[in-house]
Amino acid sequence: MSKEAVLKYNTEIPTLGPAKTTTPLGHTKYVDESQPQSLIMTPEELAELENDTVTMHFEKAGPRKKIYFDPSKTKCAIVTCGGICPGINDVIRALVLEAHFNYNIRTVLGIRNGFRGFIPKYGYDVMELTPERVTNIHHFGGTILGTSRELQDPAEIVDSLERLNINVLFVIGGDGSMRAAKAIMDETFRRKRKISVIGIPKTIDNDINFITRSFGFDTAVGKATEAIQCAHVEATGVDMGVGLVKLMGREAGFIAAQATLALQEVNFLLVPEVKFSLEGENGFLAALERRLDSRKHAVIVCAEGAGQDLMCEKIKRDESGNPELGDICGLLMQRIREYFEKRGKECTLKFIDPSYIIRSVAANAADRVYCTFLGQQAVHAAMAGKTGMVVTHLKSSMVHLPLDLVALKRRSLNPHSDYWCTVMESTGQESYFLT
Amino acid sequence: MSKEAVLKYNTEIPTLGPAKTTTPLGHTKYVDESQPQSLIMTPEELAELENDTVTMHFEKAGPRKKIYFDPSKTKCAIVTCGGICPGINDVIRALVLEAHFNYNIRTVLGIRNGFRGFIPKYGYDVMELTPERVTNIHHFGGTILGTSRELQDPAEIVDSLERLNINVLFVIGGDGSMRAAKAIMDETFRRKRKISVIGIPKTIDNDINFITRSFGFDTAVGKATEAIQCAHVEATGVDMGVGLVKLMGREAGFIAAQATLALQEVNFLLVPEVKFSLEGENGFLAALERRLDSRKHAVIVCAEGAGQDLMCEKIKRDESGNPELGDICGLLMQRIREYFEKRGKECTLKFIDPSYIIRSVAANAADRVYCTFLGQQAVHAAMAGKTGMVVTHLKSSMVHLPLDLVALKRRSLNPHSDYWCTVMESTGQESYFLT
Amino acid sequence: MSKEAVLKYNTEIPTLGPAKTTTPLGHTKYVDESQPQSLIMTPEELAELENDTVTMHFEKAGPRKKIYFDPSKTKCAIVTCGGICPGINDVIRALVLEAHFNYNIRTVLGIRNGFRGFIPKYGYDVMELTPERVTNIHHFGGTILGTSRELQDPAEIVDSLERLNINVLFVIGGDGSMRAAKAIMDETFRRKRKISVIGIPKTIDNDINFITRSFGFDTAVGKATEAIQCAHVEATGVDMGVGLVKLMGREAGFIAAQATLALQEVNFLLVPEVKFSLEGENGFLAALERRLDSRKHAVIVCAEGAGQDLMCEKIKRDESGNPELGDICGLLMQRIREYFEKRGKECTLKFIDPSYIIRSVAANAADRVYCTFLGQQAVHAAMAGKTGMVVTHLKSSMVHLPLDLVALKRRSLNPHSDYWCTVMESTGQESYFLT
Amino acid sequence: MSKEAVLKYNTEIPTLGPAKTTTPLGHTKYVDESQPQSLIMTPEELAELENDTVTMHFEKAGPRKKIYFDPSKTKCAIVTCGGICPGINDVIRALVLEAHFNYNIRTVLGIRNGFRGFIPKYGYDVMELTPERVTNIHHFGGTILGTSRELQDPAEIVDSLERLNINVLFVIGGDGSMRAAKAIMDETFRRKRKISVIGIPKTIDNDINFITRSFGFDTAVGKATEAIQCAHVEATGVDMGVGLVKLMGREAGFIAAQATLALQEVNFLLVPEVKFSLEGENGFLAALERRLDSRKHAVIVCAEGAGQDLMCEKIKRDESGNPELGDICGLLMQRIREYFEKRGKECTLKFIDPSYIIRSVAANAADRVYCTFLGQQAVHAAMAGKTGMVVTHLKSSMVHLPLDLVALKRRSLNPHSDYWCTVMESTGQESYFLT
Repeated sequence: MSKEAVLKYNTEIPTLGPAKTTTPLGHTKYVDESQPQSLIMTPEELAELENDTVTMHFEKAGPRKKIYFDPSKTKCAIVTCGGICPGINDVIRALVLEAHFNYNIRTVLGIRNGFRGFIPKYGYDVMELTPERVTNIHHFGGTILGTSRELQDPAEIVDSLERLNINVLFVIGGDGSMRAAKAIMDETFRRKRKISVIGIPKTIDNDINFITRSFGFDTAVGKATEAIQCAHVEATGVDMGVGLVKLMGREAGFIAAQATLALQEVNFLLVPEVKFSLEGENGFLAALERRLDSRKHAVIVCAEGAGQDLMCEKIKRDESGNPELGDICGLLMQRIREYFEKRGKECTLKFIDPSYIIRSVAANAADRVYCTFLGQQAVHAAMAGKTGMVVTHLKSSMVHLPLDLVALKRRSLNPHSDYWCTVMESTGQESYFLT
Repeated sequence: MSKEAVLKYNTEIPTLGPAKTTTPLGHTKYVDESQPQSLIMTPEELAELENDTVTMHFEKAGPRKKIYFDPSKTKCAIVTCGGICPGINDVIRALVLEAHFNYNIRTVLGIRNGFRGFIPKYGYDVMELTPERVTNIHHFGGTILGTSRELQDPAEIVDSLERLNINVLFVIGGDGSMRAAKAIMDETFRRKRKISVIGIPKTIDNDINFITRSFGFDTAVGKATEAIQCAHVEATGVDMGVGLVKLMGREAGFIAAQATLALQEVNFLLVPEVKFSLEGENGFLAALERRLDSRKHAVIVCAEGAGQDLMCEKIKRDESGNPELGDICGLLMQRIREYFEKRGKECTLKFIDPSYIIRSVAANAADRVYCTFLGQQAVHAAMAGKTGMVVTHLKSSMVHLPLDLVALKRRSLNPHSDYWCTVMESTGQESYFLT
Repeated sequence: MSKEAVLKYNTEIPTLGPAKTTTPLGHTKYVDESQPQSLIMTPEELAELENDTVTMHFEKAGPRKKIYFDPSKTKCAIVTCGGICPGINDVIRALVLEAHFNYNIRTVLGIRNGFRGFIPKYGYDVMELTPERVTNIHHFGGTILGTSRELQDPAEIVDSLERLNINVLFVIGGDGSMRAAKAIMDETFRRKRKISVIGIPKTIDNDINFITRSFGFDTAVGKATEAIQCAHVEATGVDMGVGLVKLMGREAGFIAAQATLALQEVNFLLVPEVKFSLEGENGFLAALERRLDSRKHAVIVCAEGAGQDLMCEKIKRDESGNPELGDICGLLMQRIREYFEKRGKECTLKFIDPSYIIRSVAANAADRVYCTFLGQQAVHAAMAGKTGMVVTHLKSSMVHLPLDLVALKRRSLNPHSDYWCTVMESTGQESYFLT
Repeated sequence: MSKEAVLKYNTEIPTLGPAKTTTPLGHTKYVDESQPQSLIMTPEELAELENDTVTMHFEKAGPRKKIYFDPSKTKCAIVTCGGICPGINDVIRALVLEAHFNYNIRTVLGIRNGFRGFIPKYGYDVMELTPERVTNIHHFGGTILGTSRELQDPAEIVDSLERLNINVLFVIGGDGSMRAAKAIMDETFRRKRKISVIGIPKTIDNDINFITRSFGFDTAVGKATEAIQCAHVEATGVDMGVGLVKLMGREAGFIAAQATLALQEVNFLLVPEVKFSLEGENGFLAALERRLDSRKHAVIVCAEGAGQDLMCEKIKRDESGNPELGDICGLLMQRIREYFEKRGKECTLKFIDPSYIIRSVAANAADRVYCTFLGQQAVHAAMAGKTGMVVTHLKSSMVHLPLDLVALKRRSLNPHSDYWCTVMESTGQESYFLT
């Protein structure tokens, strides 16, 4: 392992200074900081992380007996950035309830419409987040604060934090927002301002480094299976029926794979991580034909980022800097139709794109529990004077991770993993069309 | 009223002959055929029907004390045609359970893949429909029999009915299939075969003449509201957000209107029955801009057949003979983007097309009840020797209608009705952009 | 028919005076009061109503061109009374949105905790009901206003209406509350106060006279079928399994009957309207034994008011004056267990009481549509100067009914109706144990 | 640590003999048996396990390159025992599909009604489990095989396995059934029969030793939150309203605690692991009074096994040998009513017992994924010649555990854990009434 690799897996968390105030929590038990959480990484995980340290040590999440901030003088802010996913309102609610009821913090401000809310020229007011205001918001998808995609100048953001006298900033957003949170923290350090910046990683694609389960993922998978079930009904409702479902997954097919496992009605799963060819004996189209000849119907699930190499269009980038994807499902539909028409075979193709339905529903119970944990632990971490970090669930433990780590790169499915084998067993997909 | 109009509202039901067999039902009460169901039509309904007979008389649905067929010698068949909608399996199940348990009919055959299943060249086997086979099918959307869109030669179909010794044919399908059922009946009359042909009208658009509520409509509306709620979440999640939902409705906006009433989050409703212009002070785009300027978000619901006059493409027809619709939502998205770009205004547009999800889900409880009624009453009618008719709910009564009536034309929303006023009150839509 | 019977079906609606103000609605179409809605009653309905007037005439619901109240000076109040059911918040929301957006009424007050909210000694504040306050309440069951069961002195209530300068009072409640609304109207007449009192009948049992479908009923039936499905799973999961589900229905088994039709997995349906014996060859227990011997499982649905004659306990009354029911399900469980034990037969009995789950969920789409109609039409009626009435759906038309009529008596299932025959066909229940 | 403790955490898996047959799977990757899964236990986990071995080693689950059984000659059987919970049909389906499609095993038999199905005197036929038979069963709760509670003689069971020529037996059941599976394995060893006995632990209480998440638990929690939401609606719908929800949990309050975290509307959580007193300044009743005085409503969640020490009744045992629990919710209702009546305070109490609804629903997507894993890995283990073991998820890895370990004792909530602190933070429950 190179020295650089070792450096990049530094799991130490920055702090604002020594914790001297006694927490108001009155718990029977607090986290003992001298005992880190040790976790053994599997060979697969090490490969994914490009690391070879089998036993890694992480700071445990949880309440501390001594805290850094005096709750009576602490003012928090919450900002939500990027696309929506289930559970954002649950995290907001958990942050507010924890800060209010357990730490007696009187002021939590909601910043409107993402990082824009910090920038005066947009003219957005902040929203006072009281327990009354947030009590029912978990019954709704989206974010009550609104969101936006673009990043803003960290200096302007810290100006705004100073103006508002914010001590703690919670940033709920994707990996771009986590990098922005890091830049905000760097700016607070530069100015020697004691502001804690805590990230709560949000990604419906479940592709943030080190974060094996992002909030909202479980809900998204559940909703995705409903769409696949509909595709199955459509496909089996006619002779030679094909149901094609597009699911989220720009660079990682986690939702598609997990939903495939959940329903076990999927015959072909196409994800960004596994290249495939359309033509030829071993290509997707011939495999689809064999399936239809023998079983008279087929269900295809395609992650939006799959098969990008099959398209010759130039890649553009959107405002967040993400590449604009080519329309793989459009291509598949065209080529499937041409293929069967040319062979004089019937084929009734129905296309379902449930993306905006999936990402805008309210969180299910499992995600609610997870969001509650994330919110509570994020407040504990902030009050203890931690900064530049996120809270996450890792191998059954809640731990702190430095922002550096989660923003380092994106996770993706490992096509050589046990998990992928299980998925392939579920589809019965002929592996040979996958090059 | 012209003579032709009077003729077309002949509500008499054809019969195969006198009912002489005693029913095995053992009920305390049977339908008295000498007492028709009289219903008073409202002025709006008369206008819709292009009729002026205020009080109309209909044959009541229900069990008869004397029946035409001897149950022990009766063989039934069921065929499902056209697109799927919620509740088809419920109707199949109700037909089978009623025939089996209440009339002791031993054989009910399922014809595979629509009218094709009658045609030898396709080589589809029939499916034996026992109570065991159908006991759980109502938990699934679609049709266990499969379906197809094209019509087939009535003579070939009656050949097949004769070959299979079918006495009763239940046709579940849209208005095209109802016309086909009529043609099949005509052919049985021509051949002097005593075969009862009973239609169960199926249309997710709820646009069959005289049928104010088609089965599956209630479920479809419920599912549509979920998609609208998602569009609302998307629209309110960003500044200047617009959620656009495409709903079914080729020539009639019933689902779109009813879902609009259910959720009351819709700001613009576009249906085929009401023309509108895009441009100009009173056009849709300027109205949308005013809405966004004042409220910062908007939800648009568009029935697929709306605004067809705004497109210059030539109209093609699909295999069922239905015109292929222009892509109104594609046009709206393009024009909305151009409009706001030209004005230098932001506008984040999200498009949701839940059509295949809506039509492929299982029926809800209300539709299950309705499908149970339809199935039971259809069996009662067939066993009584009725033919060339459908069963429907009309002003709180279950009645028989001649196939002629339901196949005559399609229903559509009346933009001068109380109902439409209520819908408009719910959207708060500026009426002046509607020409 | 006696003279008294004719009197009781007087369908004329009291008014506060001539309507002279022009409505702000700007509709293309208004209700023409000179044309009543005529409806033909079926023989069954006439029997149920104890009436013999075949064609009845009702005042149509809907907006009037001339209204009685000046919207700019009108103040409304809403009170919710009795037990909760799905849709109350939808009605509140529809009332507020209609009053605010379509009539520009500035003040709608919510009275807290039922009629108590009018009585000073309880000290409850009123709740200002703005569009913002009610915008999301339809996503929740129950009532945001709170409720209570007891009636209060009409004079005290009218004192309070005068103190608050209320012009229009909407009372959402059961038949007891409708009688109370009538008493309030009488008191306003006595004092010559121009206050419109409009009732919106609420009854989860669906047992209000003339009201064939009360709001929330459809949702309740849907939720009830889920519980029955669970009972079916429990019953079929073991050998000789019995699932017993208790449903609402003190004097009328409508929910139980409709849910039975929806699921078609119910083998025995027990309702208050049909007496049955437990013992003897033709009794329930022997019928259950025959069912278990032949099919190895059984599902029983029992309305809470069924079989009251089988219990010898004295009848008490609760605070609303309703008789306290004996525990029929407790009795059934005890007697079933004894019966099978005595015969040395196995029988695994599971009991499900979903009552509080059914009544506290949010309304489904169909009920939301209905509540929207009820709310809008109630505001139209009030603004037109009507009083002492309710709005309802009757044979596909929205009409006004005098409070007198709906409060006259309760509806119940007619065991000689076509509907009941259909239900019995669905259960396959042996009729002979029903005396 | 004593020698006995070390022995009990022997994680070695018994095998039937060397694996010599090549698997038909054709995977790119197989489990390397020389590399066990090492996991680091936290201090809390060690305390729970009464163990002090920080790093434990487990056999990895997954496909082996060499297998013990020849698939073409292998016959499997599945039996389901004890109470139902969500996901049993998913496990059955996954076992059958994996055996059939991936190993080409031709015969999988379903044993009817639990262990009884092996005993000739009951006369139950076996059920042939083909892919067609199981394809849709995951849409239904319960078990298609039926179940029973009593244990049967292991010798009679092995007689039956021999008679049916079964090579692999999958036992889906609770800890009693796992002990029975162990006894069956012991009997096969005694007779030197090469029969693999694989357990799939099932417990809706989530209380099986070492199994941190049992299948169906996630679904149960989700369903439980719906009931709690209803209790919240009931409690807030009246002044001084109390909603009491009884949840499963005979000796462990996992469902109650997790559902409490999910909804965050629970004010009092009572579980078997934490004793409490009713009376006195620090008792539950006084705490409830304080809550009602300040907030006017309260939601209580009570696991069925809570507060058993408060009842003086003698403990009976049911047929599975489990103690019959006293009716804690009945006691709470009585005492709450008495308490408030004595103080002349109002209190409207609603009780919801959703137990049979929770356990009989179909599994949600997350549980479906988990059941798929369990089923696939169980087949892999059996085919590799493993026996006397279960498959489970442990700290993000799928591993094998000896039946000895899981049957050793039951898990329960640790009231000194971080998890419980988080739960208490969510309720805001006054800790001092908990002794």
